[in-house]
Amino acid sequence: MEVVQSVNHDQKVAGQLIGRMWRWLKALPEKLMGKVVEFSWKIIKLGQDDPRRVIHSLKVGLALSLVSVLYYYQPLYDNFGVSAMWAVMTVVVVFEFSVGATLGKGLNRGSATLFAGALGIGAHHLADLSGHIGEPILLGFFVFLQAAASTFIRFFPKVKARYDYGLLIFILTFALISVSGFRDDEILEFAHKRLSSVIIGCSASVIISILICPVWAGEDLHNLIAANLGKLGNFLEGFGNEYFTSENGDKEDAKSFMQEYISVLNSKNNEETLANFAKWEPGHGRFQFRHPWNHYLQLGTLTRQCAYRIDALNGYLNTTQIQTSPEIRNKIEEMCTKMSMESGKALKELAMAMKKMTHPSSADSHIENSKCATKNLNSLFKSGIWDDTDLLAVVPLATVASLLIEVVNCTEKISESVYELASMVNFRTPETTVSLEKSELGPSDDIVDCPGHVVITVNDDKSLTPANNIPENGLINTSGTVAPGRHNLGV
Amino acid sequence: MEVVQSVNHDQKVAGQLIGRMWRWLKALPEKLMGKVVEFSWKIIKLGQDDPRRVIHSLKVGLALSLVSVLYYYQPLYDNFGVSAMWAVMTVVVVFEFSVGATLGKGLNRGSATLFAGALGIGAHHLADLSGHIGEPILLGFFVFLQAAASTFIRFFPKVKARYDYGLLIFILTFALISVSGFRDDEILEFAHKRLSSVIIGCSASVIISILICPVWAGEDLHNLIAANLGKLGNFLEGFGNEYFTSENGDKEDAKSFMQEYISVLNSKNNEETLANFAKWEPGHGRFQFRHPWNHYLQLGTLTRQCAYRIDALNGYLNTTQIQTSPEIRNKIEEMCTKMSMESGKALKELAMAMKKMTHPSSADSHIENSKCATKNLNSLFKSGIWDDTDLLAVVPLATVASLLIEVVNCTEKISESVYELASMVNFRTPETTVSLEKSELGPSDDIVDCPGHVVITVNDDKSLTPANNIPENGLINTSGTVAPGRHNLGV
Repeated sequence: MEVVQSVNHDQKVAGQLIGRMWRWLKALPEKLMGKVVEFSWKIIKLGQDDPRRVIHSLKVGLALSLVSVLYYYQPLYDNFGVSAMWAVMTVVVVFEFSVGATLGKGLNRGSATLFAGALGIGAHHLADLSGHIGEPILLGFFVFLQAAASTFIRFFPKVKARYDYGLLIFILTFALISVSGFRDDEILEFAHKRLSSVIIGCSASVIISILICPVWAGEDLHNLIAANLGKLGNFLEGFGNEYFTSENGDKEDAKSFMQEYISVLNSKNNEETLANFAKWEPGHGRFQFRHPWNHYLQLGTLTRQCAYRIDALNGYLNTTQIQTSPEIRNKIEEMCTKMSMESGKALKELAMAMKKMTHPSSADSHIENSKCATKNLNSLFKSGIWDDTDLLAVVPLATVASLLIEVVNCTEKISESVYELASMVNFRTPETTVSLEKSELGPSDDIVDCPGHVVITVNDDKSLTPANNIPENGLINTSGTVAPGRHNLGV
Repeated sequence: MEVVQSVNHDQKVAGQLIGRMWRWLKALPEKLMGKVVEFSWKIIKLGQDDPRRVIHSLKVGLALSLVSVLYYYQPLYDNFGVSAMWAVMTVVVVFEFSVGATLGKGLNRGSATLFAGALGIGAHHLADLSGHIGEPILLGFFVFLQAAASTFIRFFPKVKARYDYGLLIFILTFALISVSGFRDDEILEFAHKRLSSVIIGCSASVIISILICPVWAGEDLHNLIAANLGKLGNFLEGFGNEYFTSENGDKEDAKSFMQEYISVLNSKNNEETLANFAKWEPGHGRFQFRHPWNHYLQLGTLTRQCAYRIDALNGYLNTTQIQTSPEIRNKIEEMCTKMSMESGKALKELAMAMKKMTHPSSADSHIENSKCATKNLNSLFKSGIWDDTDLLAVVPLATVASLLIEVVNCTEKISESVYELASMVNFRTPETTVSLEKSELGPSDDIVDCPGHVVITVNDDKSLTPANNIPENGLINTSGTVAPGRHNLGV
């Protein structure tokens, strides 16, 4: 009886197992389809995010197919033989996303192959003199010495940034040529074929990279810096309203465009890579050959400094509401919102000016306004309305105000840096009508009344002019004097 | 007469030129020597900064010399022939500084060669069917399609992080095998030789990389995170004194150890790279195979958040002296210095605990102290002593205090994260005597008196115990209850 029961039980278990497997198999196509659909969506999204990726992929395929003609076409194959393989390899390894990266790798590979080939032949001849027993020992020693020395040199930061790949190929080619020479006496031909096929591969990559929808690292760097300024501007434009007016619940999911600034915090590496690539690139479009790419790195550093302050500000978006009298709150609110809004606008104007490569004079009025708001805020702090206030309630407000003051300072530094860049590479003057109109009309609504802020214009009669009378070119800088070098930039 | 004058003049000029050249030539050896000496110093410094660089260079040389034995030793050469070249290439390309990077590249290269070889042979056979005219067209199409698809897949961020090199080799090998097949009918042998020589190269690299003074990326990551915590700790320990006591002049060249934190701001990329390498590494020393490397990235993010606040604080080191009454100044100074000092000590204790992989309980008292100082500061702000104060003078102080409060919060989060890590990978318990002594002795001098801070211990009788009576394990957390999971960690 027990045996029958156990058999029944086993049958039951087996039945359940089969049933489960059947259901799993039935669901499999659906699951697989789901995965396939999901993957397809990811691919489509990747392509949509940056359509240049699709074009780049096609370009690599094209270059590779072109180079393999060295194999297919008999007259060419007669010339190169198996060495055609080096051309195929070169294309695969050298073809990078941007022109600068491709050119840099190509030049590195080409020159390294040339020098290492020459050195390898020399080493081979030297080793040849030492007889058949000494030759492998001497060759091995040369390879060891050269590999160790080159590997060590690769650790120099400057070398690593620009010539790392060249040194790799140097080690590779030297080892190949000198070691092959031990077996193959036609070492000169081997070296020659390797060099010419590498050059063919590099040229094919570089030419296709430049001719078909080129991706310029320099342009990417320029746009990245401009976009980063814009992201900080977006945050600052939104911050005042978000901090003072929203309810606590709303704040926690602060608008997504205000979280864009986070990517700026870690952009250093990206910027440095792009600048390194950009230095290899020839002049293109609006960029000359010796465009001051290093200045972009400085600008990037200033932008990040501003972003660190903004990250600190962002921490205050989620703090509890301020418990202070509405009168004081309203006053501070007005100034802080103004400071934040105006420096945000200034950054966005700077971003726009960078993007269009026009003179950044349109940002000046916003910077001036933000500085006026700072001064007003300072006077408010000095005034006596605080005597009966709970200081604890003011601390977060004071911190936000203080951070905003730093942001205003950063914005000014960024503006100066953009001005420097503009004078270095001769940004176009924007449609002059706007800035002329402003200065002709006198103080416009845009410019905050800034009491006590005296601006000394560099007129011949050395008269003092209050800030309300904007000097002719509409530009005032921090120190109260008209900025040197900016005289006739806005007009 | 004029002719004679002009000849005289010419002679004079020539004489001057020769004289200048002579001086230049005479100075040349000295200049060259200067350059050589300078370069030698740079090399020595590079080696001294990290002696592992020298060892790595020698390792690469050794691996390369070893692999070239495939050429020199007749029986081996009979087997491999010219394919031995692939082994040499593999060593040059695969041998990286850390074991993880070498292993990752080696595995990528090996598996990509295997799969692409198989696929290439398949493509060759398929193309073979289409006759001698159709073959190159079909082959070219295959190469184009595969190269384009693989290049596109390389753009996926996750793929780029771990399998970028594998896909590169996949494109390369597929193109080589399928295209070579057009000329060489012994394609199977070609593929087989390529695969085996690649495997030999990879194995040689990996074995030498692991056996001779291995550099573990995981250990580097672990030490980097610990060092970063230590750097922030150094700044905070020094900040209070530097900000409040130094004269204005001294502040500008704040001590160099306080500027170390700057490298923390941009450490993200480095951390991510190391974590990616570390994931390839087998268990070693104190690290298991599936060590939670991703948790280090979280810890790194928290550290950077703290560093951003510190950067904001650093901006205040160079501001003008605080113009407020000495009484108030002294009080705030005491609290702020305490907050800064204690969170600095806490971070340094955490760094030390990380480094030694012992339980981070020694940081708890410092965190508790910094939180007490925060509370005291808050009460000070609430008190009435501010009524006759110029608010403008208090704003920078309030900001510094406010930023310090954020730093204290960050420190706490970092501590929690280190605790999590400690429980994940079972950090050793430190010499228990110290923490036991503390709890047995009751409140020690180390722990600040924190009025109004009530700590609820999870005793059976649910009695309320004031903070001064440190609970048995000596650990208190923010919410006032004993931290879950920390019960018996300190003892």
